[in-house]
Amino acid sequence: MKLKAQIVDVDTGSVHKILLNPVDITHLAMFAGERVLLKYRKSETVAIAESTSLVDSGQVGILNEVQRELHVKDGDLVEVSSDVKPTSIKAIRKKMDGLALSGEEIHAIVEDLVAGRLSDIDISAFLVSEHIRGLTLEETVHLTRAIAEEGEQLDFGTNVFDKHSIGGVPGNKVSLIIVPIVAAAGLLIPKTSSRAITSPSGTADTMEVLADVEFSVEELQRIVKNTKAAIVWGGSLNLAPADDLFIQVEHPLQIDPRPQMIASIMAKKLSTGIQHLVLDIPTGEGCKVTTMEEARKLSRDFITVGTELGINVHCAMTYGSQPVGHAIGPALEAKEALETLMGGGPTSLIEKSTGLAGILLEMGGLAPRGVGRKLAKDILASGKALEKMRQIIEAQNGKASILPSEIPIGTHTSILRAPSDGYVATLQNRALVRLARAAGTPKFHGAGLYLHAKVGSRVKEGDPVITIYSETSGKLRDAVDVAKSLMPFTVEGMLLRTMTDTEQYSH
Amino acid sequence: MKLKAQIVDVDTGSVHKILLNPVDITHLAMFAGERVLLKYRKSETVAIAESTSLVDSGQVGILNEVQRELHVKDGDLVEVSSDVKPTSIKAIRKKMDGLALSGEEIHAIVEDLVAGRLSDIDISAFLVSEHIRGLTLEETVHLTRAIAEEGEQLDFGTNVFDKHSIGGVPGNKVSLIIVPIVAAAGLLIPKTSSRAITSPSGTADTMEVLADVEFSVEELQRIVKNTKAAIVWGGSLNLAPADDLFIQVEHPLQIDPRPQMIASIMAKKLSTGIQHLVLDIPTGEGCKVTTMEEARKLSRDFITVGTELGINVHCAMTYGSQPVGHAIGPALEAKEALETLMGGGPTSLIEKSTGLAGILLEMGGLAPRGVGRKLAKDILASGKALEKMRQIIEAQNGKASILPSEIPIGTHTSILRAPSDGYVATLQNRALVRLARAAGTPKFHGAGLYLHAKVGSRVKEGDPVITIYSETSGKLRDAVDVAKSLMPFTVEGMLLRTMTDTEQYSH
Repeated sequence: MKLKAQIVDVDTGSVHKILLNPVDITHLAMFAGERVLLKYRKSETVAIAESTSLVDSGQVGILNEVQRELHVKDGDLVEVSSDVKPTSIKAIRKKMDGLALSGEEIHAIVEDLVAGRLSDIDISAFLVSEHIRGLTLEETVHLTRAIAEEGEQLDFGTNVFDKHSIGGVPGNKVSLIIVPIVAAAGLLIPKTSSRAITSPSGTADTMEVLADVEFSVEELQRIVKNTKAAIVWGGSLNLAPADDLFIQVEHPLQIDPRPQMIASIMAKKLSTGIQHLVLDIPTGEGCKVTTMEEARKLSRDFITVGTELGINVHCAMTYGSQPVGHAIGPALEAKEALETLMGGGPTSLIEKSTGLAGILLEMGGLAPRGVGRKLAKDILASGKALEKMRQIIEAQNGKASILPSEIPIGTHTSILRAPSDGYVATLQNRALVRLARAAGTPKFHGAGLYLHAKVGSRVKEGDPVITIYSETSGKLRDAVDVAKSLMPFTVEGMLLRTMTDTEQYSH
Repeated sequence: MKLKAQIVDVDTGSVHKILLNPVDITHLAMFAGERVLLKYRKSETVAIAESTSLVDSGQVGILNEVQRELHVKDGDLVEVSSDVKPTSIKAIRKKMDGLALSGEEIHAIVEDLVAGRLSDIDISAFLVSEHIRGLTLEETVHLTRAIAEEGEQLDFGTNVFDKHSIGGVPGNKVSLIIVPIVAAAGLLIPKTSSRAITSPSGTADTMEVLADVEFSVEELQRIVKNTKAAIVWGGSLNLAPADDLFIQVEHPLQIDPRPQMIASIMAKKLSTGIQHLVLDIPTGEGCKVTTMEEARKLSRDFITVGTELGINVHCAMTYGSQPVGHAIGPALEAKEALETLMGGGPTSLIEKSTGLAGILLEMGGLAPRGVGRKLAKDILASGKALEKMRQIIEAQNGKASILPSEIPIGTHTSILRAPSDGYVATLQNRALVRLARAAGTPKFHGAGLYLHAKVGSRVKEGDPVITIYSETSGKLRDAVDVAKSLMPFTVEGMLLRTMTDTEQYSH
């Protein structure tokens, strides 16, 4: 049917939407939320129809994304027809029913997702079906390729290295140590990383304390050419935009189907042109992966998918039940990383960083098997990694000579102390994340936590265990409230909770 | 965090929504599409947060549904907090993982659905999980009760009868014959019915040709008191609003999980106060239920759920592979029903109507088992059903004495003729539905189809098989186009399709 266009100046972000009067929806023998085909002169596009009485019968409300495709003006007649059933929708239904999808079907889903032809209802249906039914490794490879192909593709040549963590452990600033070690050894490592979504600090947030992280593709190419390395935010490069669209629906559902996790990570590696990847899989209580068996299975899947895609993947299962190092939060983590590069730093951070860097050095043929870690430690101790980091900071418009003491940290602090003598029994990742977020991370770079004791440390009653840093007194108050209701650490022998609502920790 | 309210004068229909700037979404450690708790003075409510840069950081865009709950004005400070995980969301996740839900959990889902606290993402996740994992009969009973309890509850006393069809067969105007037969026998049958959603005519659309169908609860009570019967639209009575909200998501997904179908139908019966129900299950190729085995399983489930709810259910599997009677479309069906009540009408319609009415008469103790159909036929033949129908029409503000010839039918017609000699082999429900919709049903009451031949009829080349009726020449042209691309009937021996794109049917 022909309907009169009424331009509605609204951006949906990605979904292509039009508005129809309920009467016309009925007349088109369709439902709100279903797709229509729109034709105007020589242009046509598919959009999702919403029902609203804001638009009169006989009219079609055209939102910005659709207007840009059809080039219609107010009052133009647009041909609207229903009964549009794209391949992607049939494919989602097929996955719902437990059938395997062809590469063509998976590409259709990702293509329609990026083109704004899938509604929240459709995306949710796909992810829930994937969560329940799973994907074969063949489907996962197709999904990875499809996600990578829908975005920008970078090319840094033929021998490109990278390090990635599946996430979930706070304080994991290892990239800021691994990247300069590996680049100092002569390997190319253009690290694109993410900002914190639900964590206290993403690698991009931590690096931003020391230098800029938002660059165009051309600027990134220049930085990598000069320094053999980079630590930048991937978000400004339009890599794998489909991945972000999937994540926007995974989060409200609180699901993270394994094949989707694999495709998400590997697609970004594929589109960054990586050939050699060390993948950190933090394992243990409070991590995404809790058992070694699960970690081994996931590793095998990553390696298989990598092989299909021409990426050489080495998985490293690491201890993930407590934070890495002592610092949590952008500035505190940047400071700890810089201290480590300058010859200080906590053992757990040095060991994890040089262990992972060593694997990359071995993959690059710079050290025989089993000797990579030693080489990484030598490079770190020699000061060459620090020198390389200063080059990277300079190339990314930071102050190359910055000292740890020059990094501003939140001035509003509160100390959580041991309520009794004993050993620190647990430091709970999830509670620490909430505590750090309440203190203001990642928005306030100076906010965060410093852990004076780690699991196994002997403490006496009254010893400081955690210092909370905030940039405002209000955020500090929020954090102290969260500390009271959660239990970010336990000391063996301490009373876990008494029946009256007294405070757990003294301040 | 406290944010400044900015009233956004938009109705979402049902979902409670607020708008937040992406910066504040990050700061709240949440994702767009997740829920927030809003507090203003003594009011609080839960809403789904959408991310948009239309709202500045520090502000919260309040849509109408939320404004009505919080009574905030522009500039008021609203406390917004994240990490709201309602029971319903945990329950949906549980069903996703294949676990059975408690009554409390199912009630939480339906309550949050009706209160606008579930997004499309959540509702899709629940329905897809239900489609894949199924529901136990116990869960189905809880779902039915929850859907019924969230809406209006009618009470017509203790001996209330009803007839329902699970749908899917065009031309099924049997309610217009069953209701007056049963009421003429003295049983109470207040039939609430639906308008067409994807079919050419719902019972409410067909009845609307003869009388009004939209009434308040009080008016319905008065009509039923006077005539022992009614044939009205259920939509104006606010019965089981949750059901409509589920259907709005089921349709774009093109799924109709069996437990959801059972709960949908039985909840409406529960809220209409029905105690005795005959349920028509059209079975066969082109129906919702294609095999007798499936029909028997579905019948058993309906009966079990009915028993739990105190509703005596009798299921009747009927032949559903072709339309009932000869007429499709509101006016054509009303005309055929009236002719049948006046002593004419096609055998298939008489047999199906009196068969189902007979079961109700037996359930009501008015005929011994096996004799109900005969009694129903006697009542139909006696003219008492016609008399009762005229009373119902009058009570619903129609013209009691209306004759079939007075019902206006579309004047633009086209005849689809047999392309060869032979027997009509198929009349395809889905193709006929699309054809009738193209001709203008249900919007144009006079539009529709008349089937001159049914499956098994002997036709000669050139004999009329289907007449298309439209109210405008444009709609007739649309229907003729649809007839060319679909194949609404086949004659044994006719060429199904030749390799050039010639027309199938002569006009």
